[in-house]
Formats: sequence, structure tokens, C-alpha cells
Amino acid sequence: MNRTVFYLSDGTGITAETLGHTLLTQFDSNPFRQVTLPFIDSVDKASAVVQEINCVAAADGCRPIVFSTLIDAAAQEQVAQSNALVLDLFSVFIRPLELELAQRSSHTTGRSHGMADRASYGVRIEALNFALHHDDGASTKHYGDADVILIGASRTGKTPTCLYLAMHFGICAANYPITVDDLDSNQLPRVLWPHRERLYGLTIDPERLHQIRNQRRPGSEYASLPQCRKELRHVESVYRSEGISSLNTATMSIEEIASRVLQDARLERRLF
Amino acid sequence: MNRTVFYLSDGTGITAETLGHTLLTQFDSNPFRQVTLPFIDSVDKASAVVQEINCVAAADGCRPIVFSTLIDAAAQEQVAQSNALVLDLFSVFIRPLELELAQRSSHTTGRSHGMADRASYGVRIEALNFALHHDDGASTKHYGDADVILIGASRTGKTPTCLYLAMHFGICAANYPITVDDLDSNQLPRVLWPHRERLYGLTIDPERLHQIRNQRRPGSEYASLPQCRKELRHVESVYRSEGISSLNTATMSIEEIASRVLQDARLERRLF
Repeated sequence: MNRTVFYLSDGTGITAETLGHTLLTQFDSNPFRQVTLPFIDSVDKASAVVQEINCVAAADGCRPIVFSTLIDAAAQEQVAQSNALVLDLFSVFIRPLELELAQRSSHTTGRSHGMADRASYGVRIEALNFALHHDDGASTKHYGDADVILIGASRTGKTPTCLYLAMHFGICAANYPITVDDLDSNQLPRVLWPHRERLYGLTIDPERLHQIRNQRRPGSEYASLPQCRKELRHVESVYRSEGISSLNTATMSIEEIASRVLQDARLERRLF
Repeated sequence: MNRTVFYLSDGTGITAETLGHTLLTQFDSNPFRQVTLPFIDSVDKASAVVQEINCVAAADGCRPIVFSTLIDAAAQEQVAQSNALVLDLFSVFIRPLELELAQRSSHTTGRSHGMADRASYGVRIEALNFALHHDDGASTKHYGDADVILIGASRTGKTPTCLYLAMHFGICAANYPITVDDLDSNQLPRVLWPHRERLYGLTIDPERLHQIRNQRRPGSEYASLPQCRKELRHVESVYRSEGISSLNTATMSIEEIASRVLQDARLERRLF
């Protein structure tokens, strides 16, 4: 059976996707077809959506699941009429919040994931620029301004983690690769010495690193299991001897690595 | 009154933050103190959280609001005892989904935002690498592999949008700046000619661009309002004459720009 899931929103659809996706991970064997319908900001658009949902219900032979964060009551009412299980992620929680805060909700659409304020937009852009300019050891001049400097062997997740920390938490994160050239000297690269307290190490299982590197440069010395073992043994021994906190990223997503680093390194986020 | 909001999760806390934050944007004048408590994956940790919540309730003089996605029933029960408005984002929706899917939910923790599968991890990393290597016109060699090529004047949001498209949708996005050197020619830079059908233009209001550039290079010719006006007039006329879809990003967040581009350019996302 082929079932379709709709994420419905008057804004980007990110909230509906996020909660919907989280809920669906609780069910096994679910090859759902996922469709996001963002910017549904009128009753007319909602009516068109109902038609689409009903067509899909007929074609699939089973009713779709709809995760909706529509704020407009008339639009949501339309959607509730469709031939689907409609889960309204909003209304359930708005009423208890109104009571608790002794305040009516504004019912304004598109507020989340919108341009909340220009200050936080600026924070984010600056953090992204910092990550881009301090990626892969490119520049080390402004390490004094970094909130954190991720170190580790090549392909352990440093770059995506820095970008995620910047994009979602406004954290200024640099990263510096520990390369084969550093293997001989059993110590931290000299350029990092003044910044010990900002360092955070990533590591990974040799087999997983071998697999990742092999996709990039198949059959190379760089990707070979012995080479991966040697490099990881080296970086881990440096982390230990220098007392640098570290994390094994082998089974983690970028979100998980970033959240762990934020917590372990006690970074103060600038964005929510 | 100073009220604290807790985002509570056995995983990263991203789902709790996303829905909680969206709900709170519906209430005005809310200088909430926001605290994320991720990786609460045992009853003991939940008990410690209850203590923290109760301390904060006493200190604030009003009870906190807790957005929770704890999956473990015993842990959630603990938290429900705390002196807070506890909104359990999970249980409300799990039951109707179980009925609809005729399946018990797995009650496994940390499933969302975890390493869902290695294939999608690879897609994401490749897309991020593509965005980094094709940022700001750095390389144009592999434009044939791009899903989309964002063009526009400097500082209109091209780079962060490409990174977001890669990180969250697995889209291979390049970006190419339309510079002052292109102003005279009144046509598309030649390198873009073979890729017309992949181009998508960003633009912005001159006043906003002036403000953004002025933060970067205060008082410069580059940041001056006449210069911003001239460049934007130029790029917009190119978009029109070449029939290139475009978007004004002046009041948009990165999420909104990325979602709009995805929709307008009919890009096929590779990640959910």
C-alpha cells in the first residue's frame, strides 16, 4: 500500500515537516510518499489543496495523512473536510497557551521561520561567513573570535557541523584538519596552541571513515583502512594527551553532532 | 514577568524547539528565556530536569512552559509532575496515527534527526560540497550537475540559500555573482549562457541592500545607495529580458528564500 503524507502550511512548512517526520519515525516499514505544500495562505489555495488530497486518496486507495500548521481558521476548516487523517498541529496547543499566558494568540500567519528580526538575520550571516572563511584551516588569523574550533582527521564531519552550528545556532565555528603531516610530531599543530580552550575534537570509527573516503577517492592510500586506523589512532591520542573533549560521529547525523558539540563545549547559542 | 520556556527531548531537541517556537510566535510581547535540554534519555535525567524546572519556577515567580517530545512514558510521567505547563507534543498525535496505520508505534527514542540512513547522509554531504565548491562563482566547471544556479548582486542571500538548500533538501545549488563589471554589457555573463534553464535570480530592495553592505564596508562606494540602486536595476532588467524567475528577498529569512526557490524552480528535493 502506498500512502501519501502532506505537510501543509501557510509559511515554509518546516514546522509541519519537522513534527510530522518525527512522529512517522515511530512507525516501521513506512515508505510514505511525502509532499510539502507551503505558502497556503488563502481559503482558495486551501480549497485547491483539498482537491489534490482527495485525488491522491482515490489514486492511492487509502486516505493520506495531513500534518497541518495552518493558522487561518477558515482555511483549516476547508482542509478538515478532505478525505484524509488531518492532524492540526496548532490548535491543540494554542488554547492551553492562551490560558497560561492570559493572552489571545495573534493568529498571524507566517511568523515562524520568517524574518524574525534583522539583528538575528545579521548574526546568522556573520556566523556563516565566519564558517566559510575558516573552513578546513583556510585562515587561522581570527581564531581568537571563534566560539569553537573543530579539529579532526579529514572526512569526520567538521565542515557540515560548522555550517550547521552557524546556520541554526549563530555560533562562530572554525575547523582545522589534522593531516598526515601532523602524524610524526605526536602533538597538536603549533597554530592551535594558543587556542587550546576552544578546541573540540571529532573522531569516527576506522571502518566508517574508510567507507566515506572510499566513496570520494576509491582505492586510494588516503581511503585505505590501515591509513584511516593510523590517523584516527593519532588524533585520539592527541585529544587524550591534550585533554581535548571529543565526540565519535560514526552513527550521528549532522544535527546530532552539532547539538552534542553545543552541549559538551557549553557554547552559548545566539539564535533560537 | 520573566517566564522560562524549556524544550525537552531524548534526542537533539530540534522538533520540540521547532513546534514550540512556532506556537510562541503567536503571542506578542514575549521575552521568554529559552532553554533546550537535549538527550534526556533516562528517568534519572528526567528527574534532574524536574528539579531544574521547579527551581526556575520558584526563581521566576511563575511556572515555566515545557515543550516535550520525550518518548519514554516513565520519563514523560516524571516531567508531567513538575511545576510547569507541560505540553507533550507526541502523545496527542501518536494514538490517531496508530489507529490510522493499524500499527503500534515503536516508542524508540532518538529516531528523528538521527543518522536515518547512510545514503541520505551521503546525499547531504555531496550537496554541501557542491555548494562550497561552487560558491560565489568560484568554479563553473560542473554547472551541468547543478540543480539550480542562483544569480544576483552581492549580498542578496545567494550563499546562505545555497547552503540551506544543500543541508536540508539535498539540492546541488551553485551561485554566481552579477558584479559591477557586468553592468556595461546589459546581458547575462557569457559563462551562464549554456545554463539558462537552471538560473534563478535573487533581488532585494535598494535600501535594504545599502543597509546590509554598509554593515560590511561602512561608507564605501560599494555600499552606497546609488550604487545599490544601479546594480539592482541592472540585474532586474537582465532577469526580465532573459525571462529568469526571480525573488525579492528583502523581508525573507533564509528558510523562506530556500522554500520559495524550491517551489518556484520546481526542484526535486532529495532529503526530507
